[in-house]
Amino acid sequence: MTSGRAVRGRRPGAPDTRAEVLAAARESFAGKGFRGTTIRAVASAAGVDPALVHHYFGTKDDLFLAALELPVDPREVLAPVVAAGPDGAGERFLRAFLAVWDDPDLQVRLLAVVRSVLAEGGGSLLKEGFIPVVVGPVLAQLVADRPEVRVPLVASQVVGLIVTRYVVGLPAMAAMPADDLVARMAPVLQHYLTGDLP
Amino acid sequence: MTSGRAVRGRRPGAPDTRAEVLAAARESFAGKGFRGTTIRAVASAAGVDPALVHHYFGTKDDLFLAALELPVDPREVLAPVVAAGPDGAGERFLRAFLAVWDDPDLQVRLLAVVRSVLAEGGGSLLKEGFIPVVVGPVLAQLVADRPEVRVPLVASQVVGLIVTRYVVGLPAMAAMPADDLVARMAPVLQHYLTGDLP
Repeated sequence: MTSGRAVRGRRPGAPDTRAEVLAAARESFAGKGFRGTTIRAVASAAGVDPALVHHYFGTKDDLFLAALELPVDPREVLAPVVAAGPDGAGERFLRAFLAVWDDPDLQVRLLAVVRSVLAEGGGSLLKEGFIPVVVGPVLAQLVADRPEVRVPLVASQVVGLIVTRYVVGLPAMAAMPADDLVARMAPVLQHYLTGDLP
Repeated sequence: MTSGRAVRGRRPGAPDTRAEVLAAARESFAGKGFRGTTIRAVASAAGVDPALVHHYFGTKDDLFLAALELPVDPREVLAPVVAAGPDGAGERFLRAFLAVWDDPDLQVRLLAVVRSVLAEGGGSLLKEGFIPVVVGPVLAQLVADRPEVRVPLVASQVVGLIVTRYVVGLPAMAAMPADDLVARMAPVLQHYLTGDLP
């Protein structure tokens, strides 16, 4: 299999096909949302065969993640959280989340993504793409029942954490030591994941 | 006492002093943040005496609320929640919040405020002004101890609720009946307000 990097290396001066596909994908996801974007249309916009898009990026989910330019793959971060089962998952989830978001280098890059997603028109990427496609299926493996209720409730607390601790930086939230935050907020996430919800 | 409305009524064609003060206040709060804004500087920018600013708008907190153009005064909405004491305050708070935010007319106007506050540079208004000055002192009356920890945690869940139910509109959050939302989220707010937090 030939990687995008190898193609660039072997054809100096040739158009960077991989970058063109990625640019077409970004434009489509931003303009038409996640559901309105197809691998076929992205390939067409980039002037390549759909098979090449699959070759470079895998599935539409993978292409979406690549277009977001996240510095980490949330599916990889969450895999060990899921693997250990529902007991204590609220705490493990929050610790995994903070290990990524409290890292200064990662935080800068994640904030850039969040700000662009929160900007006008970016809501559909969060609504149609990031939560249902990327985070939802992983979190859904943690819950015993009704993921369609529990996952959005988890999202409501995690989004609020991102906005108050990182985007806006409420002093008390930004300065709260990770251990204190885990002790105070993990029970909330556990409640949403496995608690007795009506 | 002469109200701004009466002044406008009696002097047709005269500059609308009240509107000029409000415009100067908005520019100052947006540009210099809440702490960087003084009644004296707003008065100076509007070319009036500081006493007139106090006459029209009251305190700096009141001027800030007027500049935000909220369709409701959160202090009035929260007063009965506070008056009934800490027991069950999580549920009463959430019901009062939803009564305002789920009203279609109010929601449109509140979303306009939130979008402008979340936009670039508006974070300081939320961080320095809205939460510590407007909502914080009211919520602080609900908690038995450590408002400096509990109020920001409440804010983290409420901000997440606003973003996921109204700003982004995650389908499951936007469609959740108020009674279901209260049953699921009120225990979280109660935990933050009065629970045994480390």
